[in-house]
Amino acid sequence: MPDMIRVTSDLLHRVRSTAPLVHNITNFVVMNSSANTLLAVGAAPVMAHCIDEVEEMVQLAGALVLNIGTIEPAWLAAMLRAGQAANQKGIPVVLDPVGAGATRLRTAAVERILAEVEVAVLRGNASEIFSLGRDEIRTRGVDSSLGLGAEVVAAARALALGQGCVVAISGERDLVTDGSRVFRIANGQPLMTRVTGMGCGLSALTGAFCAVADGELLAATAAAFGLYGLCGDLAIEVSDRPGSFAVAFLDALFSVGREEIGRRLLIAEE
Amino acid sequence: MPDMIRVTSDLLHRVRSTAPLVHNITNFVVMNSSANTLLAVGAAPVMAHCIDEVEEMVQLAGALVLNIGTIEPAWLAAMLRAGQAANQKGIPVVLDPVGAGATRLRTAAVERILAEVEVAVLRGNASEIFSLGRDEIRTRGVDSSLGLGAEVVAAARALALGQGCVVAISGERDLVTDGSRVFRIANGQPLMTRVTGMGCGLSALTGAFCAVADGELLAATAAAFGLYGLCGDLAIEVSDRPGSFAVAFLDALFSVGREEIGRRLLIAEE
Amino acid sequence: MPDMIRVTSDLLHRVRSTAPLVHNITNFVVMNSSANTLLAVGAAPVMAHCIDEVEEMVQLAGALVLNIGTIEPAWLAAMLRAGQAANQKGIPVVLDPVGAGATRLRTAAVERILAEVEVAVLRGNASEIFSLGRDEIRTRGVDSSLGLGAEVVAAARALALGQGCVVAISGERDLVTDGSRVFRIANGQPLMTRVTGMGCGLSALTGAFCAVADGELLAATAAAFGLYGLCGDLAIEVSDRPGSFAVAFLDALFSVGREEIGRRLLIAEE
Repeated sequence: MPDMIRVTSDLLHRVRSTAPLVHNITNFVVMNSSANTLLAVGAAPVMAHCIDEVEEMVQLAGALVLNIGTIEPAWLAAMLRAGQAANQKGIPVVLDPVGAGATRLRTAAVERILAEVEVAVLRGNASEIFSLGRDEIRTRGVDSSLGLGAEVVAAARALALGQGCVVAISGERDLVTDGSRVFRIANGQPLMTRVTGMGCGLSALTGAFCAVADGELLAATAAAFGLYGLCGDLAIEVSDRPGSFAVAFLDALFSVGREEIGRRLLIAEE
Repeated sequence: MPDMIRVTSDLLHRVRSTAPLVHNITNFVVMNSSANTLLAVGAAPVMAHCIDEVEEMVQLAGALVLNIGTIEPAWLAAMLRAGQAANQKGIPVVLDPVGAGATRLRTAAVERILAEVEVAVLRGNASEIFSLGRDEIRTRGVDSSLGLGAEVVAAARALALGQGCVVAISGERDLVTDGSRVFRIANGQPLMTRVTGMGCGLSALTGAFCAVADGELLAATAAAFGLYGLCGDLAIEVSDRPGSFAVAFLDALFSVGREEIGRRLLIAEE
Repeated sequence: MPDMIRVTSDLLHRVRSTAPLVHNITNFVVMNSSANTLLAVGAAPVMAHCIDEVEEMVQLAGALVLNIGTIEPAWLAAMLRAGQAANQKGIPVVLDPVGAGATRLRTAAVERILAEVEVAVLRGNASEIFSLGRDEIRTRGVDSSLGLGAEVVAAARALALGQGCVVAISGERDLVTDGSRVFRIANGQPLMTRVTGMGCGLSALTGAFCAVADGELLAATAAAFGLYGLCGDLAIEVSDRPGSFAVAFLDALFSVGREEIGRRLLIAEE
């Protein structure tokens, strides 16, 4: 834990001092809230989805975040092109498989991205993550219905090894693994599920942290999860209702610092 | 009134305990706010507009909400397909004709949806509602310029009977009718017109209530209108300015309960 | 200054008393926040981007705001058609070149709009504005990296004269010029750069002010900038964190009046 406290504080400091540009190709619902999440923490967001510009925009970015929440074919094509440009440039790609498992379009989109782009971090809830390649588990809309028992941990590790990426599962407790090391994060509040785009915002923040992580993507992802949940823990002390909680959450992302991280971060390595 | 108090409380309880999935094909302006409205009240929103997935998504949903606020041909095609799938499945379809009457594109889109989809509830302001089939009334943008006098009530009843649906008109006072019964709702605040997407959010909430109404769509629509306006009445006591009012409104949707409904709901049947 | 105090107060009063319809073809990120900005100040927003309806919608509007933040070819075509319809009708067109200079798509889109539409006000940050026709200056994402020294003032005046429009540059201090007269605005807060869509919201507000300005577009633009920054100055007294600052900012747009304008407006003509 002392190590993750230091890692999280250092990455947050690096985001704030370098303001990495995070290129998002994301869904219509969360474009505004994800941009505000990135701005609040100190990163620089850009949303650009047109296939005619994504390669150029990637050249300016420190990370690329792909989110299939309102996917359609033209957007998938742009995601693939942007993802390949990010791979060539060597910047991390975060993939948020919103609603994977709910429809064939979404599941197929995620499978195609994973096949054609080297994804650095796959972040979703358990149902979304395990819709990939496991027919027996189905997503109900964008909700998660799985816990994080031993079976899930084993499946997450296998998926991470199979894809060669960090697998990061949001839930009551979060799980982050690269297949060998496993982190569990206990920060966060149930009320976060009552504000739209909270998961997508975490994917965006993960992109910002990975952009400044010098390739230490497992630790950067766990740190992003810890900080994000910690800001939920700070916000719930301001309000336990979703409208004012969401406002307090952005305030916390802006003001959180070493002191709170040192005292309240709950990241444990297994 | 005691009956509508019970109906509203019961439907709210059912939404919170069953979290019905509400499938929205809606406009870009309000995707975030409508999702937050549904989450705050306890429902589960999904936004999905691609024609390749809407039929599948409808299968998971308890209601479908169509909103033409930023309509274009590809979205209209998806709305028609989703609407027909919802009809086949037997779940209610709510239609919000944003800006109908302002342009031919919007008026024609609404007319086509009404012709090809069995709409359960048509919810808009008076100008939008009466742009349908009445050339003499025109919409100015998305504003309403009509009151709710006897002529309007008669026209609403005729439209409801003609379309075989509930017609629900938002305004200073709201009007909900299936052509035979007529409810008036006196909850709500003028400041709600100074926050974008408030009408669209009400259409989404109407979808959530209809999803758990066991076919009692007239009462469910009136109940949704009453609860929504009541949350405005609660929010105005927190703030009379639009930024903080909108935050307090979401808080109220989350926390409102039987006590406030019993004391402050203003639904009257004529 | 007394003159600009009166001009700003009068334009604000006219917006509130006439509620001009402002037609926006803008980016996905800010549709909601720009609509709320316009509603808070008393104007009537409509977002409509489909090429099949933009000409009709323009007929109902008092100003047209074009914003290329998430541009794609179909949207550009609609912007051109809407812009030409606005020119024919004689209503002012405000252009926000979000991210111009960052990609060829964006720079080319702005150049094409400027070539085919008579733009009344060009509003952006310095990097965006000077990406137009000056190869040596590049935009980093949507950030600005230029100050407002003598060279920038001269370039802004030359651009305004060359385009025959008002050039309005947002930054730590703002600059508004029609090529002959130059206004500097000192209202505003650095925290405004940590809330997404603040610049786009200013373009929307500029549209509302120009809609009621009887052709006095230079003064209307300077007044919009002054009022907008002033609302930032009011909001920072409520909160210095971005979530609650954004809420307080909308509240200020709604409640600001002659008294604050008279006491705190900081517009100076050179």
